[in-house]
Amino acid sequence: MISILILGTGNVASHLNKAFLKTENVDVININSRDLKVVPKADVTFVAVSDDAIEEVSSKITNSFVVHTSGSFPLKSLKNKTNKGVFYMLQTFSKEKKVNFSEVPFCLEAERISDYMLLETLAKSLGSKIYNINSKQRISLHIAAVFVNNFTNHIYKIGNDICKKNNIPFEILHPLIKETAIKIESLPPGIAQTGPAVRKDLKTIKKHLELLDKENKKIYKILTKSIQNGN
Amino acid sequence: MISILILGTGNVASHLNKAFLKTENVDVININSRDLKVVPKADVTFVAVSDDAIEEVSSKITNSFVVHTSGSFPLKSLKNKTNKGVFYMLQTFSKEKKVNFSEVPFCLEAERISDYMLLETLAKSLGSKIYNINSKQRISLHIAAVFVNNFTNHIYKIGNDICKKNNIPFEILHPLIKETAIKIESLPPGIAQTGPAVRKDLKTIKKHLELLDKENKKIYKILTKSIQNGN
Repeated sequence: MISILILGTGNVASHLNKAFLKTENVDVININSRDLKVVPKADVTFVAVSDDAIEEVSSKITNSFVVHTSGSFPLKSLKNKTNKGVFYMLQTFSKEKKVNFSEVPFCLEAERISDYMLLETLAKSLGSKIYNINSKQRISLHIAAVFVNNFTNHIYKIGNDICKKNNIPFEILHPLIKETAIKIESLPPGIAQTGPAVRKDLKTIKKHLELLDKENKKIYKILTKSIQNGN
Repeated sequence: MISILILGTGNVASHLNKAFLKTENVDVININSRDLKVVPKADVTFVAVSDDAIEEVSSKITNSFVVHTSGSFPLKSLKNKTNKGVFYMLQTFSKEKKVNFSEVPFCLEAERISDYMLLETLAKSLGSKIYNINSKQRISLHIAAVFVNNFTNHIYKIGNDICKKNNIPFEILHPLIKETAIKIESLPPGIAQTGPAVRKDLKTIKKHLELLDKENKKIYKILTKSIQNGN
């Protein structure tokens, strides 16, 4: 039996707590990180708080092994004096939505091999996609996630705005959006590219630019150029 | 029984031909558009050729009703002297991949109501998502499709490149990519947005910019600014 303590009340903390409660080999306690007068002992202590609170909360923990759950902070942002690790799940967590942990990639890091094995055992009790990712890789992964999640979502918004402005139901674009996302599972995106930019179809590009507003024109130009550069 | 003639040998022509061959109420003939000495009569003639050949090919057709299948050209780019229409399917067609027509949005246009009804009957024999889209709407829809398909795919490529450079398997990002694409079917993208840009988390944004190369830094900045402008 592995005992774990989860500090925090946000989305990651509550989803983790719920998930571990269902496993057979893990004993889990979840407490508010503001309530650290008496900290229960545990094999692994999860600091699942907002990024800016990781240093302060971890500095107060004397348990033997402390991990945070952040994509953008290095392992050494933990300020406990005992062993350190990271248990980062690369997925968007929202309060209402159920998380399918079998689809979630677990990105694990620890200073000691035995600690890493412990994190791996915990991750395996929830899902199956497990990766050894160090702090330098994790920040790069977080940047890549900003591109494929935040920026892609913003591009969907631009598509939605163009539709609204022209009285077109946005749902017409849903199948194309889904197809584009699924395609790259079998074809690398560099090879999957189609459209006027990669075809160097200047007539169509010119026509499109004439119809866009100033800000979207800038975005269209810079992404078209980037596609054509092969970058 | 409706008789149709498909001119062209590309992806759209061959997928359409295959699909209509399976229907019960449509007689279909498919010929190469270069072979127009004897053009068979048909209720609807599909000019499913490359965009730049639409004018020339259509000018040689004397059949009663001629449609093209292009997203970026207006109805009036057809140069036949008889009736005109557009039968545009908003989906990426590739030679190898089977098309699930029940998922394909059909964007229809015709000058005469009776012709529109005929196109609607044909579309209904293949699928169920049917939209009345005029030429001005269609070019806007095509621009929106360039954003959500070509530009999104390029952003996936940037994510892939960042992963490669840091020895991270790109598959870690697949679940997030899929989740982002599916989310907007239930939540408008303007509301679904998360991440450092919309949170105005300047510390994280600065850290990300320091790690990006010149071109991706430009793209990161312009998209972050656009998210923050709410545009």
